[in-house]
Parts: sequence; C-alpha cells; structure tokens
Amino acid sequence: MARYFEKVLTDASENLNVETYRLGSDSFPGMQGPAWSIRKFALKGGKQQGVELVEIDNGRMRVALVPTRGMGILDASIEDLPLGWASPVRQVVHPSYVREESAGGLGWLAGFNEFVCRCGLAFNGAPGPDTVRTNTGAETTVELPLHGTIANTPATRLAVRVQLEPPYELSVVGEVPDARMFGAAHRLTSRVSTVPGAPEFVVSDQVENLKAEPAELELLYHCNYGSPLLGEGARLLAPVEFVCPRDQRARQGIGHWDVYGAPETGYAEQVYFMRNRADRDGNTLVALLGADERRAATIRYNIAELPAFTVWKNTAAEADGYVTGLEPGTDYPNNRSFERSRGRVIELPPGGRHAATLTFGCVCGEREVAELKAEVKRLAGGASPAVAAKPDPDYCPG
Amino acid sequence: MARYFEKVLTDASENLNVETYRLGSDSFPGMQGPAWSIRKFALKGGKQQGVELVEIDNGRMRVALVPTRGMGILDASIEDLPLGWASPVRQVVHPSYVREESAGGLGWLAGFNEFVCRCGLAFNGAPGPDTVRTNTGAETTVELPLHGTIANTPATRLAVRVQLEPPYELSVVGEVPDARMFGAAHRLTSRVSTVPGAPEFVVSDQVENLKAEPAELELLYHCNYGSPLLGEGARLLAPVEFVCPRDQRARQGIGHWDVYGAPETGYAEQVYFMRNRADRDGNTLVALLGADERRAATIRYNIAELPAFTVWKNTAAEADGYVTGLEPGTDYPNNRSFERSRGRVIELPPGGRHAATLTFGCVCGEREVAELKAEVKRLAGGASPAVAAKPDPDYCPG
Amino acid sequence: MARYFEKVLTDASENLNVETYRLGSDSFPGMQGPAWSIRKFALKGGKQQGVELVEIDNGRMRVALVPTRGMGILDASIEDLPLGWASPVRQVVHPSYVREESAGGLGWLAGFNEFVCRCGLAFNGAPGPDTVRTNTGAETTVELPLHGTIANTPATRLAVRVQLEPPYELSVVGEVPDARMFGAAHRLTSRVSTVPGAPEFVVSDQVENLKAEPAELELLYHCNYGSPLLGEGARLLAPVEFVCPRDQRARQGIGHWDVYGAPETGYAEQVYFMRNRADRDGNTLVALLGADERRAATIRYNIAELPAFTVWKNTAAEADGYVTGLEPGTDYPNNRSFERSRGRVIELPPGGRHAATLTFGCVCGEREVAELKAEVKRLAGGASPAVAAKPDPDYCPG
Repeated sequence: MARYFEKVLTDASENLNVETYRLGSDSFPGMQGPAWSIRKFALKGGKQQGVELVEIDNGRMRVALVPTRGMGILDASIEDLPLGWASPVRQVVHPSYVREESAGGLGWLAGFNEFVCRCGLAFNGAPGPDTVRTNTGAETTVELPLHGTIANTPATRLAVRVQLEPPYELSVVGEVPDARMFGAAHRLTSRVSTVPGAPEFVVSDQVENLKAEPAELELLYHCNYGSPLLGEGARLLAPVEFVCPRDQRARQGIGHWDVYGAPETGYAEQVYFMRNRADRDGNTLVALLGADERRAATIRYNIAELPAFTVWKNTAAEADGYVTGLEPGTDYPNNRSFERSRGRVIELPPGGRHAATLTFGCVCGEREVAELKAEVKRLAGGASPAVAAKPDPDYCPG
Repeated sequence: MARYFEKVLTDASENLNVETYRLGSDSFPGMQGPAWSIRKFALKGGKQQGVELVEIDNGRMRVALVPTRGMGILDASIEDLPLGWASPVRQVVHPSYVREESAGGLGWLAGFNEFVCRCGLAFNGAPGPDTVRTNTGAETTVELPLHGTIANTPATRLAVRVQLEPPYELSVVGEVPDARMFGAAHRLTSRVSTVPGAPEFVVSDQVENLKAEPAELELLYHCNYGSPLLGEGARLLAPVEFVCPRDQRARQGIGHWDVYGAPETGYAEQVYFMRNRADRDGNTLVALLGADERRAATIRYNIAELPAFTVWKNTAAEADGYVTGLEPGTDYPNNRSFERSRGRVIELPPGGRHAATLTFGCVCGEREVAELKAEVKRLAGGASPAVAAKPDPDYCPG
Repeated sequence: MARYFEKVLTDASENLNVETYRLGSDSFPGMQGPAWSIRKFALKGGKQQGVELVEIDNGRMRVALVPTRGMGILDASIEDLPLGWASPVRQVVHPSYVREESAGGLGWLAGFNEFVCRCGLAFNGAPGPDTVRTNTGAETTVELPLHGTIANTPATRLAVRVQLEPPYELSVVGEVPDARMFGAAHRLTSRVSTVPGAPEFVVSDQVENLKAEPAELELLYHCNYGSPLLGEGARLLAPVEFVCPRDQRARQGIGHWDVYGAPETGYAEQVYFMRNRADRDGNTLVALLGADERRAATIRYNIAELPAFTVWKNTAAEADGYVTGLEPGTDYPNNRSFERSRGRVIELPPGGRHAATLTFGCVCGEREVAELKAEVKRLAGGASPAVAAKPDPDYCPG
C-alpha cells in the first residue's frame, strides 16, 4: 500500500510549474481526523504580481509559505492567534524588485515582512566589507549586503506530500539553489510539515554545498512576532546561559533584556546575543510569553545545529513595525568577517550538509504556560543567565 | 441614484488584478456628450513584458498612464498633437529591470521616457551622498541614486471611476506604496481625471506619511515635451519671479534661458532654477509655446503645493532625446542633502499629507495663445523676472 | 513565388509576443531534405520563470537560443555531442534577477551558463573604474561591472524565417536594444541560421549606434565548451601569431597554453590573450580538439570583425564549472579604460554599424580532424606562434 501521496508542483529542470493547486482531506475519502487543505496560488497586484504562495491549513493551524521567496514562512495562525507581525512592507515582494546593494547595503529590507525568514546562505548579518576570492583567484574586498540572498531566491522544485496513514502528516518540500559561477553554490532543501489538528508545524532544512571546494555557510532564522502576542510586559522565555548587549544602545536596556515594552515611537532596535542551554541531546526551546501569561509562541530547535541565539527587540510604533525577532542561527548577525574571526562561520566540505529543524508552536492556557515555564527552567538546569553589562568583544564588533 | 460607476481593477490586499479591461460611453446608453473609452491592458515583448497601461480617450484627448511605473503618464495627445517626447528608451521598461544604483547612481535613466514622471518620494534629484538613520539608530552616509524610487514602483490599487451625471468625469485612481522597513513609508494616491471632450486632464496627487515618525518628502513632476511642439524658437511662458543657471554650463545660455534651440548634436543639458509668481490663491501656469506661436502646452498648478520650478533644456539631437522638462516640485532636483540645507525638504508629520494638483492642457489658435500670454503677464503682475547671471548658492550646489 | 516564409513572434512596438510556437518541415509538404523544427516556448520554475527559448532542430544539430537573454545561445548539440558546459548556474536566469553591480561588480556571474554569450555592448571585461560623461556633460568615474548588459537584455523583436527553396535555410532574427537616456544606444540585430542536415550554425550579428553622437563599442563572444569535448589532453587549435599570459597566474601555465588539464579542484582560471592569423580575406578558425583527436568543435570568424582572441582556461572541478572559453572579440576582456588606452575600443560614428559573423561547427572522424589541422596550419602560414613568457603591457593591465 502506498504510504504517501506526492504531487510535484514546480520543477525547473522539467520546465514545470503548476500555478494553482488545491488538495484537501476531501480528496481522500475515509481519511480520519480534522479536515485539512493545501493550496497553491499566485499573488496579484503591485510588487507581489507572480509571487507564489502555499497555504497549509491543518484544521487548527494555518501556515503560509512562499516558494518565490526562498521558502520563507509569510505568516501563520493558530485558532484566533496570528503569528507574525505587521511590517511597513505590506506586499509579498517579488525578489526581482529587491536590490540588496541599495540604501548602503540595506536593500533587503524592502521585502522584509515574513514571520520566519532565513538569512544566508553564504553570509548573513550586517552589511559591510569582507574578503572574497574572485574568478581570477585573487582576493578582493567586497561589500556584503544585509542578510544574504536566500530570502530572495525562488524555489526550483516544490512538492506537496500527504502521508496516507496516521498521523497523516502534510508536508511541502522545496529546493532553493543559491548559486553563482565563481561563488558559493548552496542548495537549501526545506520541508515544512504539520499533522492535522496539531498546534505546531516543523521546518526541517538541509543545506548542501554543491561545490567541489569547501564553502562557508551562515544560516539564521529570523522568527518575528508582533501584536497581539507581543505587547507591554511580554517576555522572552529561554534557558539562557549567557547574554550580552550588542552595542551601547542595547546596553541601555540590559536591565530588562527579557521583557518587552509597549510600542514606542522612535524606538531604536536593541539586540542581544545569547547562548542557550539545552538537554543532553542539544534540544532547547525559546518562547515569547504574552503579557497575560496565558499564551506563548514557542520555537524548539537544537543547539548543535543552531548554536547562536539573537533577540531583536524592535518595539517601535505599530506603524513602523512593532516586532521582536527570536533568531536561532549558526552565527550572530554580524558581518561575516567578524563572525569568521570568532570561529562562528561553518565551513562545509564539498558535498557537506548542515541540517536544522525548528518546531513552531503555541501554548495556550494557564496550566500549559506553567508547564512551559517549568520546562525552560529544567533546560536551564536551574541556573540563572550570566548577564554581561556591556558588549562582549567575543560577540560584538567594534 | 448612483452618482459614480466604479470598478476596482487592482487590489493587492485582495489579491486582485484585472489585466485586460475596457469601459466606454457605449456601456452607458443615454450618456450624452463625446464618445469616450478607458482601456487597461498589458504590454508585451522585451523589457515591457507585463507592464500595464491604462489609456483614457475622452473623445478629444488621449492619456496613457502606467500603474506599473508609479502612475506615471507615458504620453498623451490632443487631436493631432502628441504630448511627450521620443526618448532613446523606446520601451516602457518594467521596474524589475531598473537598478537605480548602476552607472554611478544614474540607473533610473534606463527606464526614463515618460511625458510626466514623478521623482521622489523620500528623495529626488542628483545622485550623491546623504545621511540617513539605519536600523541600528545610527546615522550613516549612503549614496542616493537619481530621482528616487516612485517611478519604478507599481500601484497596489487601481480603480476606474465614471461620473454618472454631467460633466461625466472619467478618472483613474491608483495607490502606490513607497515603503520599506526602517525607511520611509509614503503612500502616493494619484487621481488622473478628465471630462469627455475637454482639452485637458488633471493629475491630483496626495502623499501620506504612513510612519509614526516624521518623514522627509521630495516630490517633483518631470513634465517632458519634445517635437513637434518643442522646436527652434519655441519658448517657455511662465510668470517667473527669479531665475538662475544651475551651473557654468547653464550660465552659457542664460541670455536666452526661455527660448529653445534646434536639435544640436552633443548639446549638454542646461538647467535653470526658478521661482514663479502666482495669483493670490497660489495658482500659477507654465507653458511651452511652439515656435509658430499657434500652439502651446500648459501646466497649471499651485505654488503653495509646488514652490520650486525647474526647467531642463536638453535640445540634443532627436535621436538622443530632444526634450525640455518643465518641472514643478517641492524642491529643486539637487541632491537631498543640499535641498535640506536650504530648507526645501518637506518634513511630513506622522500621518501627514501633502497634496499637489496639476492640470495638463493645450491651447490652440492665435487668439487663444494671445489670451494665454496675457494670463501669464497678469500672473507676473507685469514684472520682469530677476535673472541671475550666475549660479546662486541658495539654489545651486558647488 | 515567395522565397521566404516569415513569422514575427515578438514585436514590442506592436505589443506582440507569441509565447508558444512551433514550425516544422511537416508544415511545408513537398519540402525535401531532413525533417526539421523550430519551437518557441517559455520556461517555468525558479529564476527561469518567463524566460523564453527558441530551439532549432535542423535534423542533425540542435541549437537553443534565448531571446530573453540577449539572443545568447544556451546550448547546442550535434548528433550525440553536446556543445556547451555545465555551469553551477543550472537555471536559465531571468535578467530581472541579475544585479550586475553586486559582489564587487561580478553580479553578471549569477546568470552565466550559456554556450555562447555576448559581452558588451558599451563595455565588457573586468569590473573597475572608467570615465563616462553624465547627463550634465561632466566627466565622472563610475564602476563598470563585469561584461556589460547585453546578455541580460531581452529582444524586442523576434522572427523566424524559412527559405522556401534549397537549401531551405532556417533562421531566427532578434533585435536587442541596449539603450538608456544619456548613455549608449546600441541595437544588436542577431541572425542565427542553419541549413537542414548541416553540422553547423551561423551567428550573424550587426550592432548599430542609434545615437547622433559617436559611441564606443566592445563586443566579445564568450564561447564556452565543457565535457565531454573538453578533457585532459584536449587542445586548442588556432593559427596563433602571438600569445601572452594575462597575469602571473596564467604565466604559470604558459608552457602548455594550448593544452588542457583534467578537472582540478581549486584551479584558478588562466587566461591567454592572442592574435590569430587568417587568410587574405581575414577568415580564420579556432577549434577545441578532443583528447582522442577524433572530434573537434570549430568556430570560424573574421579577424577584421573580431581582431582579438582570448582563451579562458577554467579547468576546475566539474561541479564548479569545468570549461574553456574561446573568445573572439573586438577587444580583450580587460576593463574598458585599459582597452581604450591600447586603441582597442571601437568608436562607432552616428548610425555606424559593426558586423560579426561566427560559424559554429563540429568535425568528426580521423580524416576530418587531419583536414582541420591542415587548414589551421595553412592559415598560420606554417609559422609558429610567438609565445610571450610573461604578461605583455600592450595586452595586460597592471
């Protein structure tokens, strides 16, 4: 008996792209459990003309992912709780409009509005100079723009998959090549999956170095939460071992680094670099706990895969993007030259792979929140975080 | 009874885009007056593949506007007189091909061929360095490219509207967001309207600052006229109070700043900065008068909305773009850093709006031209312009 | 009687683009000779979404050309021999994704995977500073990116043509404007033709300066061969008069400049600049001879049209692009400023034209290879090449 149903929706090598598609539990008579659906469609109007979306509705949770934008997760919702944020960028911007080099290397921000956005793959972090090898074999200094190219690279292959026996897992798999001649040639394979009725979805990624030479890898998950979960008094829950402010601006807020303020016009971002504790298998958990302490959004991941953790507090006015980023990564989002100097840039051997799995969920109810807190405490081993009062040169440039 | 018929053709927030559409007086039996039509269609071939156009034909005048290119006016014609010019750029270039930063910040010119093109909204004018605040709150110097981004930004909302009672006004309304995270977030709402049989159309714009913080605004209308109206002996008619040459090159032509020469191979542009007089309500008028003094193209606007006026004389060979730009603006097209230093950059408060209305028309016949001249003279209050022999440091950098 | 059948598939000035089209010998009952077909279709998926291809199959040879990418030749094959190479760039990248200025001016490499790719037209070669005249008439220094814009410019006109009498020549003609306001305005007209059953195809190009002023032209044909023809022991056959290494890296390999090595991980490119001899009409021939000496790919061209010849040896690992470029050009692929200083930049007068014709073929069999070698020797006049041991300042910058 078949164990999976699979439908390939995009395959550039076969010159295939199915623009509109729908699949649902109604397509599988006899399948038990909550009604679910998977839809693919193209957006229209403005800068989103031609951008393709896949929406998975597992009956309880809805996840929208964007093959055209590197398999990023545009937004999600669980029951009545939206996950994501309200960026000033209202459209789902087609990558052909994004010029990373503009605005002093900040052009990436013209398309930034995802709930979960990958930064990488050859580099991520702040714009600035780094040394690269050119076609001639010579080393030269180039200006790396913010956060790399993967978020603005369309998938070349996309398939949906339905497990034909319990738990009837639904998944969408995309391949995104991030390659150029004389440059890096990474391939991201991302699998987004969920089980009908479950309060979570899983992003399971693998990056492969397609080159015959070693290649650098930086991969960071910019997971962004805004209202209503973010609000005055919302808190970060995480088994933090060490935390330091990125710069003098963040230093101002170090006294309440894990607590969020209300929207504040003119607020300049405060960024904290952290190391998290984990269980013996490396599994850890971070969460944004709403101010009412009744709801929390969680991210489970493994520190062997993603050792660095960054918190971006940007509690600006709602109109300007009231948001926090919880950012597990292979590195901190500094310029690659700095991260390399601190030994945090992965060097993938030829054919080498790096995997990362993140589970995005939601916890609801007083008892469940209490359990979550207990779990975080357990992961921390009862220890309190070491809080650095000022930027630490091992983590923070200049 | 309904007073308007309205049809929404694009709405990115509703994931709607009607690519092909036609509406005409034949759709409204009993409507009196000249036959008219409004058509929307997409262009094909080369760099214009997927660019959308709206053509309004009011029975006497035809106007083609480009939602894909920031609601610019591609060209217009009244009876047998074309308005616009013949740029070396023959296609209506899709914004995804325009890399503003290329060619030393002059990449904008790769798509420049409109009759009326907006420059802005966060900045316009010559490329060069300016100071901006980045995501970290720090100030940094970036290279602003020529003329900003609005002309290469597609509309996210587009509607056509027909008044159901006299004068049966026809209008097209577009919304163009010019926004990025950590940057400006302006929204242009542009309404292009005309009345069946009228020898004019009106561009009625409003720019709103969507941010919770103040935002700078520069808005200039690059209104470009070529042959046949422009020709040797054609003249600028305007109630000029003050005029100065932008640079040494313009200084060479200051003796005949308001008169145009024949196409001249190798002619380098001459640019003049002006202040115009107006009536007590601020209304003023500029015109390009053909050499035969029998036809003129007019632009009516308000100096409270658009205090600066620039004339771009580019009487190069026909093949290289024989053209003059009459450019009412909030500022002169210098780099924003200079305009700011002279107090000519608007600072919109949060939610603040700036409106500008321009009426583009045509005057035909000896008597009508005489009336036009008289009107300009009246607006000038009988005074002659103060002509600066050389660049004035209040208007001209370096 | 009609001598040609012609079908226009794209004409931007007529707002025409036929996306899918097929024509074949079966459409012409009674036509003798091998069965052939011409197909036009659009690619789907990833960065190739919307890229258009034309495939000519003459019954023996297949040629795929890309109107969307400046009429480049994606690949070809003759019987079972593929011509072209395996770039790390697997997709046929839409120009809207290519940002030439990125990666220190090497952004062009993000789309580079063609068999035959034009570099130009206003400039080609290595990125770096050059002086240009801006809109103000002033001279300024800009950074020219690698290899110009023509390979990322779509055709505005495309037609297929079939000769209705022997030899029933099949051809595809495309027009590609490479123009911007205040910049160069070149128009490439490229005709790709072949005869049913013939083991070759012809690229017949003409570039016209549409400006009323003189304009610089640089045009280089980057003709790229990989496996299986390229392999350890493969050789360049050419009537070389003079050859010099581009730089110290190439100097290392000058002892075997015309022989290729096996794929070598980490190999940095070695580039040789050459002058070729020709017959009294200027016709010459270069070839890549397979290591088995039984097959060779040939390029016939005229040194009056293309006086410079460059060989790019990039025998890196297969995964990183194992390839050699045989590159007839008007110039060597140095920055334009250097080529100008050496008198190798063409200045086209207003309306001036430069033509180049290249015939791409294949030779198979011991006897045919022997004839090819004899022809090359005849063209060389029996003379050996003058081999410069080190970079020659007339050819090699710095």
